[in-house]
Amino acid sequence: MDKNITSQTLSRLPVYFSYLASLSDDRKKGNISATAIAEALGLNDVQVRKDLASVSSGGRPKVGYITAELMSDIGRVLGFDNRDGVVVAGMGNFGRAMLEYNGFQAYGFDIVCGFDCNSDRVGSNINGRPVRHIDELESFCRENDIHIGIITVPEGAAQEVCDRMAEAGIRFILNFAAVHLNAPKGVAVHNENISLTLAMLARCTG
Amino acid sequence: MDKNITSQTLSRLPVYFSYLASLSDDRKKGNISATAIAEALGLNDVQVRKDLASVSSGGRPKVGYITAELMSDIGRVLGFDNRDGVVVAGMGNFGRAMLEYNGFQAYGFDIVCGFDCNSDRVGSNINGRPVRHIDELESFCRENDIHIGIITVPEGAAQEVCDRMAEAGIRFILNFAAVHLNAPKGVAVHNENISLTLAMLARCTG
Repeated sequence: MDKNITSQTLSRLPVYFSYLASLSDDRKKGNISATAIAEALGLNDVQVRKDLASVSSGGRPKVGYITAELMSDIGRVLGFDNRDGVVVAGMGNFGRAMLEYNGFQAYGFDIVCGFDCNSDRVGSNINGRPVRHIDELESFCRENDIHIGIITVPEGAAQEVCDRMAEAGIRFILNFAAVHLNAPKGVAVHNENISLTLAMLARCTG
Repeated sequence: MDKNITSQTLSRLPVYFSYLASLSDDRKKGNISATAIAEALGLNDVQVRKDLASVSSGGRPKVGYITAELMSDIGRVLGFDNRDGVVVAGMGNFGRAMLEYNGFQAYGFDIVCGFDCNSDRVGSNINGRPVRHIDELESFCRENDIHIGIITVPEGAAQEVCDRMAEAGIRFILNFAAVHLNAPKGVAVHNENISLTLAMLARCTG
């Protein structure tokens, strides 16, 4: 069916997926209709129905989709059925929250290791995930074929960590340090600025 | 000058602001040219020059702008010179990271209080900011005229906290719980989904 997916549909699929992923485990075991999804997200009923029909053949009249199947069908189109290891540099509160969080798995990401330079943190274990010294970053990433990194180190250290990640073969970096990182060649950096998100919401809405 | 600002310029101003805000304190005390900003952000020189000229009259040939003045001029246009109190519900690692972070101030936000239901956390103090019991949320927000809230509670509790924030007079909610929140009437909710951001970066780039 993939050949019929328009770019507009493609842009909405992540929204459907994240809604389905956010449902309780009980609801994930049941069925869900396009109408229910449209209502929950405040979207047009007909559009949602068409979008879902273009990625999944599982819809039944009056019954809807088996929720888990629909998630899996959408996820496959979006590439979420890949399994990619992810490392996190910086084990402050923010980095620890990343290691404790299990929600990345639905999107095909396994947080495999945290890194820090503080000897009090190195060697510990958070949510079953080891914390190693930052000096092991390069060797770990190369040995485990890691291409995705999250940066939660202090601002002053972020560019250096970014450069080291690039050196280690990482190609995608999500940066939470409040500093603009220059992307090394061949690396895509997404600078996540929470202050700015809050400002856009509270100053530029309504 | 504000009357000359186009919507395109307006959409780029937050990018300039967050770049300036991310500079070291030393560099914030100096001057900066439109060319330097354009280079750092990979943007068109002429466009940046025009954008800045439309919001600030402080630019001097060969000298550029006084960095602090330029930030303040851009911030004024964006409304970042307002001062708004913000509360954070949920004092797990993520919520504690919010209280520890001082970078919201440049955008006009003061994190004034954290809330939790865990008695081990209530009564403590993080980065000079008190942690109160969640049952005090409504009275605190009303007494202190708080209109902005950040949700970092577990998924199962997020909608209830969202509804209570709305009840308490909060009008803007930034939600980090991995669950889609239904916005109560009159409230703008931004659902921040870190897994999805990572997926869009690593699956849909390059």
